[in-house]
Amino acid sequence: MVTRRILLSTAPAVLAGAPRTWAEVEKILASGNVKGKLLKEDLPTPSLVVDLDALESNISTMTGYLKQQGRAFRPHAKTHKCAEIAHRCLKAGAVGACAAKIGEAEVLADRGVGGLLLTTAMVGRYRIERAVRLAARKPDTIFVVDNAQNTTDLNEAARAAGKKINVAVDLAVAGRTGITPGEPAAGLVEHIVKQPNLKFKGIQAYAGHCAHILGFENRKKGSEEAMGKAVETRRILEKKGIECSWLSGGSTGTYNIDSHIDGITEIQPGSFLFMDIDYNRIGSKDGGEFYGDFKNSLTVLATAYSKPSDDFVILDAGLKAFSTDKPFPPEARALKGTKFSFGGDEHGKLDLRGAAKKVNLGDRVELVIPHCDPSVNLYDKMIAVRGQQVEAIWAVDARGKVQ
Amino acid sequence: MVTRRILLSTAPAVLAGAPRTWAEVEKILASGNVKGKLLKEDLPTPSLVVDLDALESNISTMTGYLKQQGRAFRPHAKTHKCAEIAHRCLKAGAVGACAAKIGEAEVLADRGVGGLLLTTAMVGRYRIERAVRLAARKPDTIFVVDNAQNTTDLNEAARAAGKKINVAVDLAVAGRTGITPGEPAAGLVEHIVKQPNLKFKGIQAYAGHCAHILGFENRKKGSEEAMGKAVETRRILEKKGIECSWLSGGSTGTYNIDSHIDGITEIQPGSFLFMDIDYNRIGSKDGGEFYGDFKNSLTVLATAYSKPSDDFVILDAGLKAFSTDKPFPPEARALKGTKFSFGGDEHGKLDLRGAAKKVNLGDRVELVIPHCDPSVNLYDKMIAVRGQQVEAIWAVDARGKVQ
Repeated sequence: MVTRRILLSTAPAVLAGAPRTWAEVEKILASGNVKGKLLKEDLPTPSLVVDLDALESNISTMTGYLKQQGRAFRPHAKTHKCAEIAHRCLKAGAVGACAAKIGEAEVLADRGVGGLLLTTAMVGRYRIERAVRLAARKPDTIFVVDNAQNTTDLNEAARAAGKKINVAVDLAVAGRTGITPGEPAAGLVEHIVKQPNLKFKGIQAYAGHCAHILGFENRKKGSEEAMGKAVETRRILEKKGIECSWLSGGSTGTYNIDSHIDGITEIQPGSFLFMDIDYNRIGSKDGGEFYGDFKNSLTVLATAYSKPSDDFVILDAGLKAFSTDKPFPPEARALKGTKFSFGGDEHGKLDLRGAAKKVNLGDRVELVIPHCDPSVNLYDKMIAVRGQQVEAIWAVDARGKVQ
Repeated sequence: MVTRRILLSTAPAVLAGAPRTWAEVEKILASGNVKGKLLKEDLPTPSLVVDLDALESNISTMTGYLKQQGRAFRPHAKTHKCAEIAHRCLKAGAVGACAAKIGEAEVLADRGVGGLLLTTAMVGRYRIERAVRLAARKPDTIFVVDNAQNTTDLNEAARAAGKKINVAVDLAVAGRTGITPGEPAAGLVEHIVKQPNLKFKGIQAYAGHCAHILGFENRKKGSEEAMGKAVETRRILEKKGIECSWLSGGSTGTYNIDSHIDGITEIQPGSFLFMDIDYNRIGSKDGGEFYGDFKNSLTVLATAYSKPSDDFVILDAGLKAFSTDKPFPPEARALKGTKFSFGGDEHGKLDLRGAAKKVNLGDRVELVIPHCDPSVNLYDKMIAVRGQQVEAIWAVDARGKVQ
């Protein structure tokens, strides 16, 4: 049995070890039927690659933790924009998926994903109409409001369509969207519950500014303060006799903080699936500098395509292969001592002066991403690999769905 | 006649003035047949918008200038990635289009664009095979090399395919890709001309670092120094008896410098089509701070969708609506005194504390982009408007074609 297993596991490597032409690889990639046919080294570059062992471990870690804490798990799809990953989370026990924009939610609904939570208010021409249409297709969808007029407008549109839609209040706990917690929020909720075509669901409080606070104790302090306002708002509502059994918040950086706060019922993290350099540096619970609760599953595979001197190589991945909103560059972690800098739209410059290993023209370089969400949004597809084997190609279904 | 003209020109506005539902607008947008049916204010947001009057003026200004200088014009498609714009440039007198990646060039070729120049060497698995295939479809395509082994490999692939392909030498005048100018480059050219299946075309020298030097005189000094090395390399080749009648370089920032340098035959600018904040600040030839040789034709149209306080509004455009590789944010130029900052993946925060005008929930805000190329790469479509009228929807055909 052991012998047979070894044979089976090495068979694709032998197959893929044969020299491949682009014509062959292009055909395999276009067919979508890639399993056992391609190795990671057969991929064209730059490619967005997700390591399945790491991704599955991340889903399992988060699901297990939140189950133990008795909190619901609604991962944010703005990170992955990929129906396949949303379905994998649902299968693992998620109650649904968050979406940042209505266009994103529509695509997820088209691909059979339910339990949708729209994390930003449906304001602006057309959004209310699209919201009511989505609610008709997926009645368990939850929308948020942070404004009385918008609440009235949403009710009016739901009434006109003969529907009743789920609405939560979005709290401003992070200086971004939302209504001021406490009495202002309670006032808005009193307005919501009066609307005959809205069903009050509860509170959303996303403290985005806390997710990346460096050091666990600082982060804990920040998140407890921010989320405390949400819990207090829930108490005010319950004192007023308004049932509020749902409070959604939390992030990859605060899942193990917010899930310990009484009154928070649901955690909506996204980045834990992939991780990135930004999250790696926030520090772990035990005081370590590296935040390793979740594995880095996401990389960009690049090729050295110019070598003007021995000091550096030019990679085929630049500003169109990575988002650049963080003050630190991608990292070629397997090539210790190298330093990446952007060399324009299409190029990355890899400084080799401190490198432990040579990099030659044509060599592959795998890079960890500074910030996963906007980087994933650059790619139409991500390539799912297990070890060196390419296992699947997943569409980034909601890529570019910013409306 | 005048009366009739006025009636005709106002007719679409009257038509579009009627309240529109998303269902109606969605149908019109999906049909692609938008002329006379939609106003800019009917667009969903965020949308990437290109002003046709400004774009046409930019094409005409650049074409006219280079014609007068007797230089060929091969605009870089890495900026717009849009076959419609490439064709408009060709119609205005361009000799072709530059492409940064083979995937980009393939898409342009699919859409009937010829005269292609691949501005980066075809290194890495598959690129040579794709290059030879493209050359077979579009024999006037020019490829660049900066390495002897890659040159040999390219010749071998061309030989195997029974083709002869055009090759130029890429000079390192900007610390990025390319071979050292002067004797090292001449040595490589001597190797190129020995290859039976390569036809030596000339020199490419893109001095990207000069394009954004602040102040015309500084920029002139920088570009003359960098491009001087290319002209000198051309002289060395001619002394060796190697014909070199083609030297391509230049950018939006140096078109009126490089086109005055003897020996440069072709200019390959891209950003002049759209302009952006980065180019606006390099300074004009007459010493002005604002570089206004070309008009700002490109904007992102956004909506204020949350207003937590009177001090700011949250817009529906964040890190997925703009590239962030420049140290300055998008600008809402029509709303003087406002300041934009990023509020995460999906949100922009518009500070209203110094604003000359109120911004209310649901209001539209039009933003000039910090850096056009990687921002265009975020959108599947750009909306072409003339004044307030939507005239066309153009596919960003080569969006995401980073391979």
